Amino acid sequence: MAREGARGLTFRAVDAEAGVPKGTASNYFPSRDALLDQVGAHIHVRLAPDPARVEETLRAPRDRELVVRFTRDILRRLHADRAGYLALLELRLEATRRPDLRAGFTETIRARLEDSIAFHLDSGLPGDRTTVVLLYIAMTGLIVESLTLPGVLGDEEALVSALVDRAAAIAAR
Amino acid sequence: MAREGARGLTFRAVDAEAGVPKGTASNYFPSRDALLDQVGAHIHVRLAPDPARVEETLRAPRDRELVVRFTRDILRRLHADRAGYLALLELRLEATRRPDLRAGFTETIRARLEDSIAFHLDSGLPGDRTTVVLLYIAMTGLIVESLTLPGVLGDEEALVSALVDRAAAIAAR
Repeated sequence: MAREGARGLTFRAVDAEAGVPKGTASNYFPSRDALLDQVGAHIHVRLAPDPARVEETLRAPRDRELVVRFTRDILRRLHADRAGYLALLELRLEATRRPDLRAGFTETIRARLEDSIAFHLDSGLPGDRTTVVLLYIAMTGLIVESLTLPGVLGDEEALVSALVDRAAAIAAR
Repeated sequence: MAREGARGLTFRAVDAEAGVPKGTASNYFPSRDALLDQVGAHIHVRLAPDPARVEETLRAPRDRELVVRFTRDILRRLHADRAGYLALLELRLEATRRPDLRAGFTETIRARLEDSIAFHLDSGLPGDRTTVVLLYIAMTGLIVESLTLPGVLGDEEALVSALVDRAAAIAAR
C-alpha cells in the first residue's frame, strides 16, 4: 500500500509479496473490500505504541516534559515505520470512497482521541481538552508533511517542543 | 483525482470527463507523468485565495482577529472545494512515488510558507515564525481529518480560534 497506493493492494500483489501460490489471499478474504477492511483494522495495531514503553514513560513526573516525550515518541515511530504511516494515509483516502472503512476508522480514531484526552486530564498534565485536540491535529499535519514533502519543515523535534508549549499555554478554566 | 485517486487520472478518464474524443488528452500531454506534473502545478492556482478578497481582508487592523480571519478563510475554501483539497492530498501521496512532482511541490509549498512567515512578521501580527509554522501544520492536519474522517473533530471554527490564540501565545523574543 505504501509503495503503490491502495489501488495496488490486490489479491495478486498480496500473493506475490507474501511468496505464496496465486489464489492464496483470495482463500482468506471473501473480497477485496474485506481485505481492505482488515488492513484498516490492523493498521491501528501496527502503529500503536509499545505498551511496555508507555508504562515506563508513565513512571516519569506528569509534567510538560512528559507531554513532550509522548509527542516526540510519535515522531520516533513515524521514522521507524514510514511505510505503516503512509499506508494509514492511503487508507484515509480510500475511506473517502468506502463507507464501511470510513465508519470503522472514525470510530477507532475518535475513541483514541477521547482516550488521550481522558488520560491527559486525569493525569493532571498541563493544558486542557483543546490542548490534546490541537496536539492531535498538528501531529497529523506534521506526519503528512514529513511523509510526503520531507524538505518543507525544518527541525521536527524543535517544532514538537514549541507545539507542546503553545498548545498548553492557555487552558480553559 | 478526488473521486478515484491519482491512479484514476488516465488519458481515457480525462477525455471522458471533458466530453472530448478519445485521444484528445494524449495530444496535449506527451505522457501521463507530464499530465500529473501539470495537475500538480495547477492545483496550487486552483486552491489559492482570491487576491481581491485577500486585499479587502488586509484593510482590517493587523491583530489577532485578522489571523483568525485568514485561518478561517482556509476552512471556508476547504468546504467550498473539497474535491480540490482531496486532489492535493492524492498528489501529495503520488509525490512519494514521483521525484519530479515531489520537487515541484516542495518548492511551491516552501515558498508559500516563507511568504506567509514574511507577511506575518512584516505586518506585526501577533506571534513569531514558529506561530506561522504551527498554524500551517495544524491546518494541514485539520484539512486531512475534515476531508477523510469528518466525524472525528467537533466544531472546526472554534478549534481554529483556539489554535490561533495558542500558536501566538508564546513568541520567541
